[in-house]
Amino acid sequence: MELFLFEKENVGKQMHKFMTELFPICRSITGNGVRETLKKIQTYLPLKITEVPSGTKAFDWIIPKEWNIKSAYVIDPKGNKIIDFKNSNLHVVSYSIPIHKKISLSELKPHIHTLPDMPKSIPYLTSYYNEDWGFCMKHEDFIELEEGEYEIMIDSSLENGSLTYAEFFKKGELDDEFLISCYICHPSMCNDNLSGVVLATFLATYLKDVNTRYSYRILFIPETIGAITWLSKNEQELYKIKHGLVATCLGDSGSITYKKTREGDNEIDKIAKYVLENSKQDYSIIDFFPNGSDERQFCSPGFNLPCGSLVRSIPGSGKFPEYHTSEDNLDFVKAENLADTFSKYYEIIYISENNVKYFNLNPKCEPQLGKRGLYRNLGSQKHSEEKDLAIFWILNQSDGKNSLLDIAIKSKLDFHLIKEVADNLIKHNLLKHIK
Amino acid sequence: MELFLFEKENVGKQMHKFMTELFPICRSITGNGVRETLKKIQTYLPLKITEVPSGTKAFDWIIPKEWNIKSAYVIDPKGNKIIDFKNSNLHVVSYSIPIHKKISLSELKPHIHTLPDMPKSIPYLTSYYNEDWGFCMKHEDFIELEEGEYEIMIDSSLENGSLTYAEFFKKGELDDEFLISCYICHPSMCNDNLSGVVLATFLATYLKDVNTRYSYRILFIPETIGAITWLSKNEQELYKIKHGLVATCLGDSGSITYKKTREGDNEIDKIAKYVLENSKQDYSIIDFFPNGSDERQFCSPGFNLPCGSLVRSIPGSGKFPEYHTSEDNLDFVKAENLADTFSKYYEIIYISENNVKYFNLNPKCEPQLGKRGLYRNLGSQKHSEEKDLAIFWILNQSDGKNSLLDIAIKSKLDFHLIKEVADNLIKHNLLKHIK
Amino acid sequence: MELFLFEKENVGKQMHKFMTELFPICRSITGNGVRETLKKIQTYLPLKITEVPSGTKAFDWIIPKEWNIKSAYVIDPKGNKIIDFKNSNLHVVSYSIPIHKKISLSELKPHIHTLPDMPKSIPYLTSYYNEDWGFCMKHEDFIELEEGEYEIMIDSSLENGSLTYAEFFKKGELDDEFLISCYICHPSMCNDNLSGVVLATFLATYLKDVNTRYSYRILFIPETIGAITWLSKNEQELYKIKHGLVATCLGDSGSITYKKTREGDNEIDKIAKYVLENSKQDYSIIDFFPNGSDERQFCSPGFNLPCGSLVRSIPGSGKFPEYHTSEDNLDFVKAENLADTFSKYYEIIYISENNVKYFNLNPKCEPQLGKRGLYRNLGSQKHSEEKDLAIFWILNQSDGKNSLLDIAIKSKLDFHLIKEVADNLIKHNLLKHIK
Repeated sequence: MELFLFEKENVGKQMHKFMTELFPICRSITGNGVRETLKKIQTYLPLKITEVPSGTKAFDWIIPKEWNIKSAYVIDPKGNKIIDFKNSNLHVVSYSIPIHKKISLSELKPHIHTLPDMPKSIPYLTSYYNEDWGFCMKHEDFIELEEGEYEIMIDSSLENGSLTYAEFFKKGELDDEFLISCYICHPSMCNDNLSGVVLATFLATYLKDVNTRYSYRILFIPETIGAITWLSKNEQELYKIKHGLVATCLGDSGSITYKKTREGDNEIDKIAKYVLENSKQDYSIIDFFPNGSDERQFCSPGFNLPCGSLVRSIPGSGKFPEYHTSEDNLDFVKAENLADTFSKYYEIIYISENNVKYFNLNPKCEPQLGKRGLYRNLGSQKHSEEKDLAIFWILNQSDGKNSLLDIAIKSKLDFHLIKEVADNLIKHNLLKHIK
Repeated sequence: MELFLFEKENVGKQMHKFMTELFPICRSITGNGVRETLKKIQTYLPLKITEVPSGTKAFDWIIPKEWNIKSAYVIDPKGNKIIDFKNSNLHVVSYSIPIHKKISLSELKPHIHTLPDMPKSIPYLTSYYNEDWGFCMKHEDFIELEEGEYEIMIDSSLENGSLTYAEFFKKGELDDEFLISCYICHPSMCNDNLSGVVLATFLATYLKDVNTRYSYRILFIPETIGAITWLSKNEQELYKIKHGLVATCLGDSGSITYKKTREGDNEIDKIAKYVLENSKQDYSIIDFFPNGSDERQFCSPGFNLPCGSLVRSIPGSGKFPEYHTSEDNLDFVKAENLADTFSKYYEIIYISENNVKYFNLNPKCEPQLGKRGLYRNLGSQKHSEEKDLAIFWILNQSDGKNSLLDIAIKSKLDFHLIKEVADNLIKHNLLKHIK
Repeated sequence: MELFLFEKENVGKQMHKFMTELFPICRSITGNGVRETLKKIQTYLPLKITEVPSGTKAFDWIIPKEWNIKSAYVIDPKGNKIIDFKNSNLHVVSYSIPIHKKISLSELKPHIHTLPDMPKSIPYLTSYYNEDWGFCMKHEDFIELEEGEYEIMIDSSLENGSLTYAEFFKKGELDDEFLISCYICHPSMCNDNLSGVVLATFLATYLKDVNTRYSYRILFIPETIGAITWLSKNEQELYKIKHGLVATCLGDSGSITYKKTREGDNEIDKIAKYVLENSKQDYSIIDFFPNGSDERQFCSPGFNLPCGSLVRSIPGSGKFPEYHTSEDNLDFVKAENLADTFSKYYEIIYISENNVKYFNLNPKCEPQLGKRGLYRNLGSQKHSEEKDLAIFWILNQSDGKNSLLDIAIKSKLDFHLIKEVADNLIKHNLLKHIK
C-alpha cells in the first residue's frame, strides 16, 4: 500500500486555518459548542454522531446534565463591565450554574480565579461534577478591583440533555482497527486541544480516499467522560483495536514525544520508536504513566488497549506553561509544527499498514538471484549496494517470525527500501505474505 | 501493617551495650561459651534451644566433639607469663587440645601464629576438624622471644558432648517465614560476629510484640556446622521460607552491602535493592558468590533458599583488615552504625510485610474519584499532587500482577505513600487484596 | 580432554609455507585447479572427495559447466605481450569463454577491468553464471594503451564436467559434529582465501591424532555453489551439527572478529565471546548479517545452523582494501597472524570439548572438603585461594543447568582452572557428568 501523498507545508496551513475557524466556539464536555464543532468537521468528513442522555450510566460514571451558556459579565461599582464572556470564553468557569445578583467584593473574591505567576493571562477552569460558579480573569486586573458592590451575571443553563460525540470510520481490508482519539471539550484553546481536532480531521480526509489494510476509527469525544462513555457503549468491539494513538498538543514548538502503551511493547510502540529514531530530529520516548489524557481510560487494566500517545510538549509537564491559559492561542500553535506532527502520524500509519510478515519460499540456501536479474552478473570487489543488502536481509529473515519493520531495524536499512524490495521479491515468487 | 516504631539512636546504644556484655565470653562452635551467650539472649527473648550430640550425622558432616577451655598460658625462660588466655581468648587457637609441657623455642614456634603485617594485633584462628594446638600473639611480641625452655599450658577439654543452637520463632498471619540467621561461634570479636547477634536479638524483641503477616524465625547458630545441622534437622519445613537474610558484620563504618540470593531475582532481592537505592546513602549490591557465611549452605543447590545477606563491609573482602583479629573489638563497632543497619533491616521487613498485590475492583476506566471525595473538585491548571498520582498508579497497575513495591518502583513514588493511599482505596472498596 | 599441544610460532610458519605452495594454482569454482589443491592437502590429511556432474540440481541452483584454462594473453599493436596469464592468474576474468581474435582498442576496452583507485593492482573478477570473457590489469598500464589492433587469446574450456569438493571427517565420542568450512575457489589470493585452507588443514592434522568428544567435519568447498551443493547432498545429516565456524581471512594484521550465528545465542557464540574477551587482545564481535561467505547458506532460514565465522578483517568491510586484488598476496599474510588465529580456533575447540554440565552429588549444604584433603585445615584470616573459590563455585552451580563455561563466566575464574578443579572433584565422587 502506497498510502496518500500530501504536500506538507500546505497541510500545515490548512490545519491552522481550520483551527482559526473552530477557535471562538465555547466548547465544554456537553452542549451546543460541541455540536457546532462537529458540524464544522462534517464539512470535511462523514461523521456518525451519538447523543447520550444525561443520567445514563457509563461504568462508574453518570452522564452529567448538559451545560450551555449565552453570556456572562461582571460590572464593577463604577459601572464598568470588567469581565465580559464575549471577549473570552475562558472568563467563565466551565459548568458554572446561572446566577445574577449584586454582591460585595469580599463575597465575589472566592469565585474569581487568576494566575499570580502569569498576571497577563486568564486561566481555564472547570467544575463539571460540583455545582458552583466562578469567573477567571487576569491577575493584573484582579488586583485593581476596588471595594464596593459588583453586579455579576451568568446566563447559563444546566439541564437534562445529552453528551455528544462523533466517530469517523473507514473500513479497510481487515476488521482490525487503528484508533485515533482526540477530544472536543475545551473552549478557546489551541494546542490543548484544537490541534488534535484539526490533525485528526485532516488525517481522516486523506484516509477516506485510499485503500487501507487496517480499518480506521477516529474519535471526536469529550475528554474523560466521553472516552468512558464511548468505551462503555463499545465494549464488545474493543478486541478489534490493534493500534491506538491519543492526539493532543500537536502544534507547539517542543520536540515530538511518544508516550508508550501500558505494556510498552506493543507493535505501535515499536513503530513509533522507529519513526522518531529515524526522524533526524530531537524526540523523547517516555514510559506509560496513568495520568494524562484519554489513554488513562483506554489503558485502564480492564481494557489495556495498545494505545500510545504522540504529542509534542506533554500537557502539565511544566514544559508548556501556556497549558490551560489564554496563552494557548492561535499564535502559540504554528502551522509548521502541525505539519511536522502530521508527517509523523502519516509515517506511523504508513509503516503499520506495510508492516507485514513474509515467508521465504526458497528457504534452503539463497535462491540464484542472477538468473532472475536480481543481482549483478560480474562478481567483483565492489561493495554490496543497499538494494542487494535488502534482498539478502529480507530473504534471510523472512521465516515467518520477523516483520518488515523487524528486518529494517536489524539491517539498519530504511523501511521504505525494505518494503520496495520485498514487493519486488513477491513479484519473483520468492516471498509469500503470511496472513 | 504498621510494624513497630523505634528510636534509632537509642536502639544503637542498647545493641552496643549488650555487645559489651557478650564480648568477654569465649565462644566456639560448641561448648559452654555458646550456652552462656544464649542465656544472656534469653533475658530478652524466648528461645528454643537444641543440643545435638557429638557424632550425629548432618548430611556429609558429623557433629564434632565439644570443646571447652578453662585457662592457657605460655611462660618464657625467664619465668614471665608472655601469653595468658585471661587477657584475650584469641590467644588460643580454637579447638586446641589440652597440653602442658616444657619445650624449646624451636619446638614452640610452629604452634605460634602472628600477623607480620599487623604486628600489634592478635589473629583469630581455629582448628575444628584437625586435632592440634596453638597460640596466637602479637607479631611485635613474637619477634622478641628468646631461646630457651618455655612452659606451655592449655587446660582445655575435647570430649563427646553436644552442639548447641537456638531459635526464636514468632507466628504471623501466614505460615510463610522470614528467616534471619546469625552465628554465635566467634570468641571476643565484635563486627564478625557479635554485631549479628545483637541486631538479631533486638529485631526479635520488637517483632515479638507486633502482629505480623509473615512468621519470623531467627537462628542463633554456630557458623557452617550449625547451619548444616539446622538444615539437616528441618529439611521438611524449608519450603516455608519466603525471604532470608544472613546477618553479620553490621557495625563497622563501611557502607551497607547487599549480597543477592543465588537466583538473584527473588522478592527479597527486589526489596533490598529498593531500600538501598532509596536510602540516600552509599551502598553496594553484589551478586551471589558461594564463599561467605551461612548463605553458602542456605543457597547450596539442593536447597537454593531465597536468602541474601545484608552486611556493611564484606568479611574477607579486604575492605575490613580488622577481620579475624583483635582489632575487631568494641571500639571498632559503633553504636550509630548498628543503628543504621537496624533501620535497614526494619525497612526491608516493613516492605516485605506490606508488599501485597491488589485487584482493582473497578478495572474498566477510572472510577469517579470526585464523588468519593478522593479528588479535588475544580479541574485546573495545577499539577497533580503526589497523592493523586499514587491513586492513578495503584488503580492502573492493580491487575493482580503488580505488587505495591512494583508500583512504587514504576511510579517512582515512595513505598510508604503507595501503601497509605492503597489503604485508603481499600476503605473505598476500590481495591481487593489478592491472597 | 586435554586436546593437542602445538608450538604456536612453528605452526604459523608451516601454514605460511603450505600457502606458498598453493599460491600459484589457478583455482575457480570448478576445474583442475581445485583438484590440484585438494591433492596437496591430501599429503597432510585423508580426504573424501566428491565430484558432482555439471547440470545436477542443488536447490534453486544448477551445477555449472567445468572451467579450465591453459593460457591467455593480449598483444598490443606494437607486438608487445602486455597481458600474460603466466604472470598472474588474476589477469583473466574467471570463467572467461575461449576466444582468439584481433580487435580494436575500443572493442577491447569494455572487456578490460582495472582499479582506478589502486592503479598498481590487478583486480580479481568472476563471471560464473553469465558467459562472457574479460581481462584484468593494472590501471597504470591500462591508461597507457594506444589505439590500434590488439590480439587477444584465451585458451580456456567451458564444458560439461563436474564440481569438486572434499571433506575431512574425524569421528569423536559423540555423533554431534563441529563443522569448519573453508573455500577453495579463489586463484592466487592469500588472505581470501588460502588462509582458510591452510588453517583448516593444520587444525585437521592435529585433530586427527587426538580423542575428541565431538566429531569434526572440515569442508574444502567452492564458495556459495559448493556450500549449496554440499547442503543439498547432506540435508538429512545436518541435525548433527552442534557448532560451526566459517574460516576465511585469517592471516591479515587486523584484530580478530567473530561474526555471530543467525540466532546469536548459540553455544558457539558464548564460547567465541569468552575466548575473545579473555584474549587480552583487541577484538570485535558483530551480529550476523546475511551477506558474507558461506554462513549465508548455513544460516539460511531453512537450515539456521549454529554457524558463526571467526575471521580477522571482514572481507568487503573496507578495513581490508587488498581484498580481491593482487595485493592479497604472500606478503600481505603473515605467519604470526595465522598462528594467532590458529590459537583462537584451538581455544574455541578446547572449550567446546570441555564445556560439559555436572551434577553436584552432595547438593545439600557443602560437602566437608577438609576430610577429603580438598581444603586447608586451619581456619584463618587468609583470603580464599582461586582453587578454593573454584571448588565452591563448581559445587554451588552444578545443578545440571550450568556448564563449566557458565561457571567460569559467573565466577570470573579461568576456564582452564575450572576444568582442572572439576576433574579433581569428579575423582572425589563429588560431581557426576550429565550426558
